[in-house]
Amino acid sequence: MEFRPGVPLRRQLEGALRVAIRSGRLAPGSVLPPSRDLADEIGVSRGVVVDSYAQLATEGYLTAKRGSGTHVALLPASGRPPAPRKVRVPEHFRYDLRPGQADFHAFPRARWKASLVRALRELPDRRLGYANHLGVAELRNAVAGYLARGRGVVVEPEHVVICCATSQALTVLWQALRQQGGRRVAVEDPGWRWQRYTVEHAGLEAVPVRVDADGLVVSELAAADVDAVVMTPAHQYPTGVVMTAERRSALITWARERRALIVEDDYDVEYRFGREPVASLQGLAPDLVAFVGTTSKTLAPALRLAWMVPPSHLIDDVENMLLVTGVTPPTLDQMAMASFIEDAALERHLRSMRRRYRAKREVLVGALGTHLPEVRIGGAAAGLHLLAWLPDGTDEHETAMRARRSGVGVHELHRHCTTHASSSPALILGFALPSESELRTATALLAEAVA
Amino acid sequence: MEFRPGVPLRRQLEGALRVAIRSGRLAPGSVLPPSRDLADEIGVSRGVVVDSYAQLATEGYLTAKRGSGTHVALLPASGRPPAPRKVRVPEHFRYDLRPGQADFHAFPRARWKASLVRALRELPDRRLGYANHLGVAELRNAVAGYLARGRGVVVEPEHVVICCATSQALTVLWQALRQQGGRRVAVEDPGWRWQRYTVEHAGLEAVPVRVDADGLVVSELAAADVDAVVMTPAHQYPTGVVMTAERRSALITWARERRALIVEDDYDVEYRFGREPVASLQGLAPDLVAFVGTTSKTLAPALRLAWMVPPSHLIDDVENMLLVTGVTPPTLDQMAMASFIEDAALERHLRSMRRRYRAKREVLVGALGTHLPEVRIGGAAAGLHLLAWLPDGTDEHETAMRARRSGVGVHELHRHCTTHASSSPALILGFALPSESELRTATALLAEAVA
Repeated sequence: MEFRPGVPLRRQLEGALRVAIRSGRLAPGSVLPPSRDLADEIGVSRGVVVDSYAQLATEGYLTAKRGSGTHVALLPASGRPPAPRKVRVPEHFRYDLRPGQADFHAFPRARWKASLVRALRELPDRRLGYANHLGVAELRNAVAGYLARGRGVVVEPEHVVICCATSQALTVLWQALRQQGGRRVAVEDPGWRWQRYTVEHAGLEAVPVRVDADGLVVSELAAADVDAVVMTPAHQYPTGVVMTAERRSALITWARERRALIVEDDYDVEYRFGREPVASLQGLAPDLVAFVGTTSKTLAPALRLAWMVPPSHLIDDVENMLLVTGVTPPTLDQMAMASFIEDAALERHLRSMRRRYRAKREVLVGALGTHLPEVRIGGAAAGLHLLAWLPDGTDEHETAMRARRSGVGVHELHRHCTTHASSSPALILGFALPSESELRTATALLAEAVA
Repeated sequence: MEFRPGVPLRRQLEGALRVAIRSGRLAPGSVLPPSRDLADEIGVSRGVVVDSYAQLATEGYLTAKRGSGTHVALLPASGRPPAPRKVRVPEHFRYDLRPGQADFHAFPRARWKASLVRALRELPDRRLGYANHLGVAELRNAVAGYLARGRGVVVEPEHVVICCATSQALTVLWQALRQQGGRRVAVEDPGWRWQRYTVEHAGLEAVPVRVDADGLVVSELAAADVDAVVMTPAHQYPTGVVMTAERRSALITWARERRALIVEDDYDVEYRFGREPVASLQGLAPDLVAFVGTTSKTLAPALRLAWMVPPSHLIDDVENMLLVTGVTPPTLDQMAMASFIEDAALERHLRSMRRRYRAKREVLVGALGTHLPEVRIGGAAAGLHLLAWLPDGTDEHETAMRARRSGVGVHELHRHCTTHASSSPALILGFALPSESELRTATALLAEAVA
């Protein structure tokens, strides 16, 4: 046996014995050499072997009986473990037009580092313990101000809940809704499929309701017999439609009569080009609407920071759910985001990104006009993606597969959304991550894939 | 109207109108002044008012009809929102002996900052997007090595799952178990109450099974008719008992025959004083045991970093659960922890903390001997807490309340654990956070509370 320097001999011997027993090299029931013999053989003191045998007996690997020596325990075999393989970081597309990505090259690393380092320096020792499961006070205060200023949300800081992700916020809302007797939730059709998954994951039934050029068809909600609806009114995903004022008003009337919950998924509304975004639905009816926002589009999904403002009657159930699962973003990250918002760094970043994304969208729209004039572009000039409607009869899936093979990552409407199979084929094209020249090349490659 | 410099006039006007409408100052149905009149009145150009009216009409606050002017929309009233209150950081005990806290004064801030800053500098742009929901490759590789070295866990990096908290890991395991038809889960009695809550939260039934001086009473598991058991074999919470080799072996035989899942909550086993900790149960039967570990005791709960190694037949269901809820620790935090482990900073920190905690435990045991000789101390010399059995007939709750009123934070056994009401009264005393002299003072105050 070879010993490594710096690690106690006893620990090394125990490790070697455990591996030998697990792998079957030391068979169950077989007798181990007396401690004195083994010590001589491998060149350690007898005490090392005695202690090792005792430790492994405590752990259940060995049994020692007076007079009959030390045996390998008769553990029921569990098979030889497979050889360890390292996990690898997954590969990426050369031209990544998949939706759901921000321009990571523009991530404000220096500014974020300053916020992180400041949080780590200033956080009192005691606050390294368990934090409030609704989020740290500083971030809840900062988010309340940000949402009131930027999204017309009516909110007390006490009602801001910090989450790891939009999906988590939705999951918790459904659990709270279920606690209060809710059973069915309307989802947009087409819509973001993960919304539907969160509904089903929470044990509720997802009921698709149609989206047309004015947004969710509110008149069809009544027939859907639902306790809640989750939607993207300010910039519908994936169609890009902005819900009209008439529909917004009808929706609120429906929810008030039915006592239903509206969940407003405000995922990318910080980006509206050429005009200001419509304010949140939540501001019109804070007692009916749960507002959900995220930093995945404004900064980066890697941060895993989102927030929600549930109506006050759901807060207690939301808090209970969060208490049990222990899922809260790390305190330091929350403190960093709080100062990032309070120092206006987030709003400054958004202003500069709005210009950048607007230019990228124009490049993509232009390139589509040149290379794919038969494609119709859907939705408002907003967000980080557009919907490209393909000519009827195009095989959406085959087209997307061909595009991916040529290095262009895109999502097809029907695979990535909850949607009626009957609607026209389309691709969802994100324009945030590639550079302007990459967008041009990618569009040319895409045209070959469509042809 | 007063305008603030630096914010577009239009946005300020819109904000003021929204607030006026929501508060009822502008009543539903009332007519707004013509844009020209309002513009003159408040001293802005007419275009600002026209644009503001249009924006608020889009949002549903106003309705504009040709010929009849602009009205406040007839939104169903939702009541005046309460005045905003800031959220405050909660207060702490002067002597905090509540379990579940590490010595935050010894948190390795400089070393952690170095790891964080390095992660932020080195992470490629593209990895600011969505990461693998099981965790980033670097941390899964590092944790696999750490658990194999330190805890005798048999693990491929592909089977390491990074979580935000032990409770989250348990929640996900129960969801996966339920997916596979599981219904009942044994919990230790007495045991950590949050374990039971996670079971019930996932819609399963928690079945208490007795713990005695040898650990969980395995012979009572058969009668409990359960599909899984969650336990703390290396250092039972809260009794501090270390499960005997016979029980470990019997437990594994039971699980193999019954095809049951064993969940090993390895919450504080890094700290065993005077001898090395027993290796994990998981190492004896990797196909039956899900191992769960956390950094809450080794570093700080604020980091929100934990991990688990489920048996391979549960991995796919675990991944599906994590995909839907989107709950993964932030990429940068994971990268920082990966280098913190790979650089051996974690193991160095543990070595120094072991000495520190050992000394603190001795101070507390000594002080209890002096001030409260009638108290019996339970469990092995390990972890960050001990169980102090009070004389029979003592009112545990009243004692804890009196202690808290004198500034000593403690947890009572029956309020903070799942336990038979019939067992003796006891307090759970954490010794990690207070200094040695604070431990002495706190014990003296505690003696007054017991008396």
